Amino acid sequence: MPALTRIMLDVLKPHHPNALDLAMAIAGLAKDYRVSLRVTAVDEKTESAELTVEAAAIEFETLREAITAMGATIHSIDAVEVAGDGGRSED
Amino acid sequence: MPALTRIMLDVLKPHHPNALDLAMAIAGLAKDYRVSLRVTAVDEKTESAELTVEAAAIEFETLREAITAMGATIHSIDAVEVAGDGGRSED
Amino acid sequence: MPALTRIMLDVLKPHHPNALDLAMAIAGLAKDYRVSLRVTAVDEKTESAELTVEAAAIEFETLREAITAMGATIHSIDAVEVAGDGGRSED
Amino acid sequence: MPALTRIMLDVLKPHHPNALDLAMAIAGLAKDYRVSLRVTAVDEKTESAELTVEAAAIEFETLREAITAMGATIHSIDAVEVAGDGGRSED
Amino acid sequence: MPALTRIMLDVLKPHHPNALDLAMAIAGLAKDYRVSLRVTAVDEKTESAELTVEAAAIEFETLREAITAMGATIHSIDAVEVAGDGGRSED
Amino acid sequence: MPALTRIMLDVLKPHHPNALDLAMAIAGLAKDYRVSLRVTAVDEKTESAELTVEAAAIEFETLREAITAMGATIHSIDAVEVAGDGGRSED
Amino acid sequence: MPALTRIMLDVLKPHHPNALDLAMAIAGLAKDYRVSLRVTAVDEKTESAELTVEAAAIEFETLREAITAMGATIHSIDAVEVAGDGGRSED
Repeated sequence: MPALTRIMLDVLKPHHPNALDLAMAIAGLAKDYRVSLRVTAVDEKTESAELTVEAAAIEFETLREAITAMGATIHSIDAVEVAGDGGRSED
Repeated sequence: MPALTRIMLDVLKPHHPNALDLAMAIAGLAKDYRVSLRVTAVDEKTESAELTVEAAAIEFETLREAITAMGATIHSIDAVEVAGDGGRSED
Repeated sequence: MPALTRIMLDVLKPHHPNALDLAMAIAGLAKDYRVSLRVTAVDEKTESAELTVEAAAIEFETLREAITAMGATIHSIDAVEVAGDGGRSED
Repeated sequence: MPALTRIMLDVLKPHHPNALDLAMAIAGLAKDYRVSLRVTAVDEKTESAELTVEAAAIEFETLREAITAMGATIHSIDAVEVAGDGGRSED
Repeated sequence: MPALTRIMLDVLKPHHPNALDLAMAIAGLAKDYRVSLRVTAVDEKTESAELTVEAAAIEFETLREAITAMGATIHSIDAVEVAGDGGRSED
Repeated sequence: MPALTRIMLDVLKPHHPNALDLAMAIAGLAKDYRVSLRVTAVDEKTESAELTVEAAAIEFETLREAITAMGATIHSIDAVEVAGDGGRSED
Repeated sequence: MPALTRIMLDVLKPHHPNALDLAMAIAGLAKDYRVSLRVTAVDEKTESAELTVEAAAIEFETLREAITAMGATIHSIDAVEVAGDGGRSED
């Protein structure tokens, strides 16, 4: 099965949990997740963030549940990188 | 025969399957396909995406059928990279 | 536990302590902190600065306390990078 | 004799053959041709493309004939790289 | 103690000493100072310059005194990089 | 004697010889000349081109004569790189 | 004594000597001078050029005299890089 190696999400989140807490929670989902989060817009009650996760194989459903559990929502999937089995073992 | 090593397509797709599912399906076509997909515009019922596939030798017909089978259409071929037999073995 | 490896803060500070003193104080918090601070706007009594800290594992609470103790405030967390346990040991 | 190692052409082509077919045909001219083609403008009946060929020694006449045989025309030669005999063996 | 490894200053200076003399004087402060100075604006009697000093450990007070002794003034500290003890020995 | 290692010329040329023929003729002047030519403007009877030649030691007079012999003229010398004897042997 | 390792000058020069002759004369001043000259503006009788010299240790007075002897004048010193004794031997 192909592996999702990178995903960039446009996330709408409340001010709390803050960017750091959200990123920490996601990085805690698996041992090799590298997470970066950049706040792109701030409104009165919410903020938009560009959330990027990289790993050998990201489990998207688990990721989505974690984001939702923090009170945030995935506004859109803006970019993905996927490698076939052979491509993955090559890296 | 020369090999298609990289292709960038402008794809028009319905919201479902989402970007991730479309990329996963394409990466599943062969063991060494590396797929990236970037959403470039979102309309009410469709979204445009820049889909890039890289591999040692991409089979375009299989790729087109997979895209069509997901309900998406290739709007245009925006860039290709092709290597002759000698150039390929050199890489 | 995932580690915070990079954080970029938008900081509002009085003119004194100056950028150098603030950065030195933060770098003194742990042996491996690398701190960079760039002044982005200067007003009559305050200045805004983009403060970036990188380390193997940044303790955010200690960082926030140090910033506050200098009379400055964290206006926003603009970017963070976090690595899961496995990702961290891989680096 | 100096060798043409890279050429970038502004090509005007009908929609068919498409970008992929045109690039494949050119890459088939010699074993080491690396071809990239980027569509730059699309009109009702034609499209403009930036066609780049790289190789140890490109035969321009053969290249022009292949392009013409596909129904396309070279609008202009936009860039060339040429190496003298010594320069070539140095690479 | 953390070390100041890079500092970028906005300096206001008279036309004399010129940019070269000012940079030479600063580089003479310690054996490993690397100094770059870029003139950013020229007025009738003064010019503004972006002065950057890099070293293993810059002594800011000595630097400021040298700048003042040349008739120039530090208009602002625009960027600093500081490394904790561990971070420094890692480099 | 210092060596001219790179020169960039603004050349005005008739449409014939074309960019390729002009570059080939110049690359034929010496064994190690690397020539690149980029067309920057096209008028009814002439075109402007940015011609760059790189080599261990370019003979400018021979270069100018070759350009003139093709019906083209050097509009300006836009950039040169020259290395002293020591600098050259260092490369 | 600190060494001037790079200097960028804004030079005003007559059309003759041309950019090449001026650069060659400067590169002839010492064995390791690397000189680049880029013409930035052309007027009826003069042209402006950005002249950059790099070397282990540039002698500015000799450089200025050579420029003046060619009928050109240094309009401004736009950037300098200087290394202290230790910094220099490190490179």
